[in-house]
Amino acid sequence: MDKETLETGLRIRTEVLGKEYVENSMKNADDFNRPFQEFVSEYCWGAGWGRPGLTKKERSMLNLAMIAILNRPHELKLHIRGALTNGVTKDEIREIFMQVGVYAGAPAMLDSVRIAKEMFVEIERGG
Amino acid sequence: MDKETLETGLRIRTEVLGKEYVENSMKNADDFNRPFQEFVSEYCWGAGWGRPGLTKKERSMLNLAMIAILNRPHELKLHIRGALTNGVTKDEIREIFMQVGVYAGAPAMLDSVRIAKEMFVEIERGG
Amino acid sequence: MDKETLETGLRIRTEVLGKEYVENSMKNADDFNRPFQEFVSEYCWGAGWGRPGLTKKERSMLNLAMIAILNRPHELKLHIRGALTNGVTKDEIREIFMQVGVYAGAPAMLDSVRIAKEMFVEIERGG
Amino acid sequence: MDKETLETGLRIRTEVLGKEYVENSMKNADDFNRPFQEFVSEYCWGAGWGRPGLTKKERSMLNLAMIAILNRPHELKLHIRGALTNGVTKDEIREIFMQVGVYAGAPAMLDSVRIAKEMFVEIERGG
Amino acid sequence: MDKETLETGLRIRTEVLGKEYVENSMKNADDFNRPFQEFVSEYCWGAGWGRPGLTKKERSMLNLAMIAILNRPHELKLHIRGALTNGVTKDEIREIFMQVGVYAGAPAMLDSVRIAKEMFVEIERGG
Amino acid sequence: MDKETLETGLRIRTEVLGKEYVENSMKNADDFNRPFQEFVSEYCWGAGWGRPGLTKKERSMLNLAMIAILNRPHELKLHIRGALTNGVTKDEIREIFMQVGVYAGAPAMLDSVRIAKEMFVEIERGG
Repeated sequence: MDKETLETGLRIRTEVLGKEYVENSMKNADDFNRPFQEFVSEYCWGAGWGRPGLTKKERSMLNLAMIAILNRPHELKLHIRGALTNGVTKDEIREIFMQVGVYAGAPAMLDSVRIAKEMFVEIERGG
Repeated sequence: MDKETLETGLRIRTEVLGKEYVENSMKNADDFNRPFQEFVSEYCWGAGWGRPGLTKKERSMLNLAMIAILNRPHELKLHIRGALTNGVTKDEIREIFMQVGVYAGAPAMLDSVRIAKEMFVEIERGG
Repeated sequence: MDKETLETGLRIRTEVLGKEYVENSMKNADDFNRPFQEFVSEYCWGAGWGRPGLTKKERSMLNLAMIAILNRPHELKLHIRGALTNGVTKDEIREIFMQVGVYAGAPAMLDSVRIAKEMFVEIERGG
Repeated sequence: MDKETLETGLRIRTEVLGKEYVENSMKNADDFNRPFQEFVSEYCWGAGWGRPGLTKKERSMLNLAMIAILNRPHELKLHIRGALTNGVTKDEIREIFMQVGVYAGAPAMLDSVRIAKEMFVEIERGG
Repeated sequence: MDKETLETGLRIRTEVLGKEYVENSMKNADDFNRPFQEFVSEYCWGAGWGRPGLTKKERSMLNLAMIAILNRPHELKLHIRGALTNGVTKDEIREIFMQVGVYAGAPAMLDSVRIAKEMFVEIERGG
Repeated sequence: MDKETLETGLRIRTEVLGKEYVENSMKNADDFNRPFQEFVSEYCWGAGWGRPGLTKKERSMLNLAMIAILNRPHELKLHIRGALTNGVTKDEIREIFMQVGVYAGAPAMLDSVRIAKEMFVEIERGG
């Protein structure tokens, strides 16, 4: 493990997904899923997101398109919230899912729109 | 068919993929694939790419990530060339495929890198 | 936008998915998802389903197989109902999912069967 | 192994994919791939295609859409030839790939069209 | 149908997924889904799992990785239980999902971990 | 970067994929793809494969199933060779692809078998 990369990762992950979410993920980790938490924090958020060359906003935009296509609603929700935090506007989210529709088809687009709407409601309610 | 949208689509498609490519696609179209050429020009390039809200550079960035994951090497090559035309740098392409690696796994990343390298060589040779 | 194609699309979409569903989709649309409603109505249902060359029943059969593989349960449910409306029988739905099993594997088949059963119960209850 | 199902499977497979192809597959089978030849003949072609409830033409139509989405060009080619044998016309193949475009996106559609064109040329040359 | 293969399949399926599950699946089968029950029992469990050459533990390990990537949570749950029955330990399940993360990306890994945790809780409660 | 993990990764990668392959990958790396080489060596091979809990043979078996489903022929070839190095026998490779057939469908299975045969020929020729 590279401590510096892990720390960078935890910092970025917290900035993007929120303090509460990251603290809960770490606190609730047991022997089974602690290694995943560390792996994700170090490699995805440290060694991946921590790289220069793209802004956090651009990485968020890519993630919305990728996770929509990868068909993982739970992760998509997290990254919609993260995208808003990183300055992606609702109008831009709409355009990203339009582009998903053209390149990955209508069901991927409509599912993503439905999930985004659920997330917007959650956020408005203070969730 | 909406003539205005089709014309917008043909214009954008030509700007992004190049005059030669689009003219060849249209010229080589027969009864079997002409409807696809029109469908793609009008809907993908006109009604999709023609929308405001994202820059062409941003749409190209999304496409590289999406088509890498959708696993379509032939289309990926075209859109790597288009991305360079739209101002995406080689360094940014590298970062996009890094992000693909984190979210869609090593094989999707390595395949895309290999295809990008082939395309860079083709372009350098004037192809 | 091509008004004629949009109108064709809305008509076919209503015939296949039902008046109540389409009216609700349109009524509940806000600034975020109205463009998707229009895009889907014009392009999927107008420019896609509106084409000659395949019967509505045949398009429904293809959709069940495709959406089963694309792994979108929410859309699959809608199109199971639509397929019944378009004259696909329960026996034919069974055979389509058998064919999905052979070409896309047991989990895609079993998931689709489970979703179809849920939908049949919903329809019997008048939903 | 169920001998009757295997025989049904070999008969249907031969009718759809051609005598030459099936005989070559069987003749070239060694210890490594003979079990796959038998598995495919018995289960896919015997227990799958051998079922009543859908015509061979309908099963071919489903296969073109499914294999296009599953992204397996080698198998797609075989089943394009098989579809023509089963009475699917070129116009219907075009419509099936249009429907693929709407539901699975432009790259899946364009790739399938390209493969179909290659296959049509091969067949015209007597391949 | 090959009666011997079907019986082998039912026996293995019962050993792996549990007597209660298999009896319920068979008892609840109606005209619509009985053919799927038979197909799965004979081909997946009889002709597939019934083959020599891999241990049941190894087949379970493969299944966890495959079904995680195929993105079928309902089937994944069943096969997590089956894997434990076949002697795959929790530590091994963790390592399998780590390997999924490296080759299929973080969202596939994190989703699978979440589903595994739900299943472990269910099992502890005697479910 | 964690130097120890990178070194572990390079060692395991060399053991599995061969000295020649890894040296070529490193030697041919330019500014564009060097970061991928390092990322893959450190994270996939060091932090992933370097973990205890599964044998190298078991990781190879999982990889064959996963990469077959992920539909990446180029990577599949490499990992077939690696699997043989790690003690997976040809008979076991056959069984793994059988299991792929049951859970991911016939085209994924047949494509993988075809690729394996090509690789076996290459290896016999001393490639």
